Amino acid sequence: MDAAEFRKRGKEMVDYVADYLEKIEKRQVFPDVEPGYLRPLIADCAPQDPESFEDVFKDIEKIIMPGVTHWHSPYFFAYFPSASSFPALLADMLCGGIGCVGFSWAASPACTELETVMLDWLGKMVNLPEEFLAGKDGQGGGVIQGSASEATLIALLAARTKIIRQVQSEKPELTETEIMGRLVAYASDLAHSSVERAALIGAVKIKNVPSDDTFSVCGSALKKILDEDKAAGLIPFFFCATLGTTPCCSFDKLLELGPICNKENIWMHIDAAYAGSAFICPEFRHLLNGVEFADSFNFNPHKWLLVNFDCSAMWVKKRSDLIGAFKLEPLYLQHHHQESGLVTDYRHWQIPLGRRFRSLKLWFVLRMYGVKGLQEHIRKHIRLSHQFEHLVLQDERFEICAEVVLGLVCFRLKGSNELNEALLKSINDAKKIHLVPCHLREKFVLRFAVCSRTVESTHIKFAWQHISQLATDLLKTWEQNHHQQ
Amino acid sequence: MDAAEFRKRGKEMVDYVADYLEKIEKRQVFPDVEPGYLRPLIADCAPQDPESFEDVFKDIEKIIMPGVTHWHSPYFFAYFPSASSFPALLADMLCGGIGCVGFSWAASPACTELETVMLDWLGKMVNLPEEFLAGKDGQGGGVIQGSASEATLIALLAARTKIIRQVQSEKPELTETEIMGRLVAYASDLAHSSVERAALIGAVKIKNVPSDDTFSVCGSALKKILDEDKAAGLIPFFFCATLGTTPCCSFDKLLELGPICNKENIWMHIDAAYAGSAFICPEFRHLLNGVEFADSFNFNPHKWLLVNFDCSAMWVKKRSDLIGAFKLEPLYLQHHHQESGLVTDYRHWQIPLGRRFRSLKLWFVLRMYGVKGLQEHIRKHIRLSHQFEHLVLQDERFEICAEVVLGLVCFRLKGSNELNEALLKSINDAKKIHLVPCHLREKFVLRFAVCSRTVESTHIKFAWQHISQLATDLLKTWEQNHHQQ
Repeated sequence: MDAAEFRKRGKEMVDYVADYLEKIEKRQVFPDVEPGYLRPLIADCAPQDPESFEDVFKDIEKIIMPGVTHWHSPYFFAYFPSASSFPALLADMLCGGIGCVGFSWAASPACTELETVMLDWLGKMVNLPEEFLAGKDGQGGGVIQGSASEATLIALLAARTKIIRQVQSEKPELTETEIMGRLVAYASDLAHSSVERAALIGAVKIKNVPSDDTFSVCGSALKKILDEDKAAGLIPFFFCATLGTTPCCSFDKLLELGPICNKENIWMHIDAAYAGSAFICPEFRHLLNGVEFADSFNFNPHKWLLVNFDCSAMWVKKRSDLIGAFKLEPLYLQHHHQESGLVTDYRHWQIPLGRRFRSLKLWFVLRMYGVKGLQEHIRKHIRLSHQFEHLVLQDERFEICAEVVLGLVCFRLKGSNELNEALLKSINDAKKIHLVPCHLREKFVLRFAVCSRTVESTHIKFAWQHISQLATDLLKTWEQNHHQQ
Repeated sequence: MDAAEFRKRGKEMVDYVADYLEKIEKRQVFPDVEPGYLRPLIADCAPQDPESFEDVFKDIEKIIMPGVTHWHSPYFFAYFPSASSFPALLADMLCGGIGCVGFSWAASPACTELETVMLDWLGKMVNLPEEFLAGKDGQGGGVIQGSASEATLIALLAARTKIIRQVQSEKPELTETEIMGRLVAYASDLAHSSVERAALIGAVKIKNVPSDDTFSVCGSALKKILDEDKAAGLIPFFFCATLGTTPCCSFDKLLELGPICNKENIWMHIDAAYAGSAFICPEFRHLLNGVEFADSFNFNPHKWLLVNFDCSAMWVKKRSDLIGAFKLEPLYLQHHHQESGLVTDYRHWQIPLGRRFRSLKLWFVLRMYGVKGLQEHIRKHIRLSHQFEHLVLQDERFEICAEVVLGLVCFRLKGSNELNEALLKSINDAKKIHLVPCHLREKFVLRFAVCSRTVESTHIKFAWQHISQLATDLLKTWEQNHHQQ
């Protein structure tokens, strides 16, 4: 395919994407396919000779779309939102066209420098303390990771390197292995599974800190477990605080936890993957109070800030902590500007070596929406979640299971877990909307997350009426079965 | 921006990208900017109100392009190629439009299933042993990672978990920490820095195995160091063989190394990040002989197979080894098809949780080029590298520093490292072409990598004439300075 054909096909693809997103509401949100559906539809091996664009294009509707879960349907209320907007799609086209690999400043100066400045913009939007910004000569700064999982892992590894060096300088008789064996990381019992995974990868112990009645970790809970562990000769070194837990969007109490971590020489990382985007609204910024105690902070514009995946924003107070944990410098990656204080080589900040020009997406989205446009998007979602909450509260058969703070509503039928499992099954089998569950303590709970950029009040009403009707049908059968027993 | 405006702007962006790539030859391959150039050109913070597309668009040429290193210029001969093709760009547009996050089968069945089948296609193209393919009920299979660094890390972590379980079952008196302290990974002294980094992250020792005169690791070199380490009570568990080293594209001797690894219970991972794409040509497939001894294999279609970054293909013989190392299963990520043998949840195969629909790029590229089209691309690059090699060999002032097997030529002026550093500086200062150096043993060497999809014989000739002229100029001054001393 030459440039001339790309001009033609590219425009067709733009129209296809526009059509898809404009009419997504008409597609069934969750696919009908069974596991293994795709293989029989496709050849056993790649063709020897080129096929035409038309041949490939017609297979999109035939082979791909029947198996797609439509994350941008206004009937998609599962997981958390995955961001999508037209400015981000445009930026990604440009990113692909430029096709640079920005592992070092020299590999593409614009790629590196725009990222640093965009992370400063974004940091200012959520009113991060100055220390986290790169500015012209700051010690901190931001980086785009692929996912919050990577940000957590990077923070944990940096903290691990830092504490090992500290302990070794104080107690030179200890080997690195001995120190590693005594390190402990901590996170809420409601923290994302990626925190446990980071500890697994980093080969350090991790312990759950029990959350309280509001599903938040408070200072005393952390203090208690730290005291026990220190008494047992362990070395606490890392705490991952969660703002907006995945199960129920609860918030760890940073203002209590931060001073403890600072006092105890524990790296505090804040995972605000979903909730972080809301902090651009002044009325929600208080949820981030205490960030001043943290060493690193992360949230995902690719979740709720209309920047298509992947774009996970991470900031650190001391970039030297990250770089120190990883810096390896083969000659083919060195360049002559390297010693300048202005130069960032982002490969030292992340797991992969290569990186796309992802900051273009932030640049396009922040400029074409403006802060006000993005605040509007966040506020709409939160308004809609409260709308759903009110509908649930008006129905005595249901209960709300956790405070609705942002765009997530945790709810269930009053009754057994089996009953709620059956309700979720009937909802997802009907495939008019899509939800996923969670456990809160012993309870099986339904999560209703406001996700789509285009979701409106009418979709919320529809979703509730649908759930309510399915509950009525279910309860009828359920009671009959119950009477028969 | 609504769908109607996206249709308009999207088409403008398609034309911009087509123009950029069609006329890229006219742009200076390496930018003139100094570190810190971008910040003064951009506002201090994000705008409150939306800006128009026109405002953002005009800043691309004003702010971004002056700082771009043009990786797809036919005058770019640095690092290794970064793939770019029109079919891949089209697929990426579709990927953005669908915008699903494929961490599990249910999160988007098409995203998961197309990936499994595409990795089978690609595996067959390089004639991988059947065990590495997923097929309908295979124990192996492939996955798209973001980068070779991640593939190496994942392999090392899987190997680490596996050996710890084995040792613990044999010697239950050893703690995990004690075992960890005795584990050793190995790789060539010319292996990519990401291998050392993977060991650093995984908190295990790593040792360089000395490469031989041809810059290859041979069996006896590995055997020697293994025997020493075992005698010292260490536990060798992982060897990363490199096919196509970054400095000089040399090849470790798989047929000698593989049997040793198998016998010694060492996980052999093969990193063929760059070279792997060449194995689709029957005449280069012999370079992969010995892969049958490996546990995992990786190469980057995003380097040399015309699939835009990121698309790093990794295969394992036993998927249970990968999954076993990471599987954590919170309720919100479970789905009811999970127990079926047909279902792959790729989140267990990788570091991040989320993942883009990257297999679309493979699907578009493999079909629209066909195997023959891709073979042609590889063969053209290799022909051009030999053309450059011959030009170097005809000039007695120069020497070739390593066998030219694929698309990389390592060369230098006969003389001191300082002289060659000066030559490289004069080449990169002139900015007509762009190269990076490497060290081979004690020698400072220039790497000439055939990179661009559109590079032709005329560009090679131009590059050589340019280098040759700069060498003449340099040698004149150099000798004068030398005489004066």
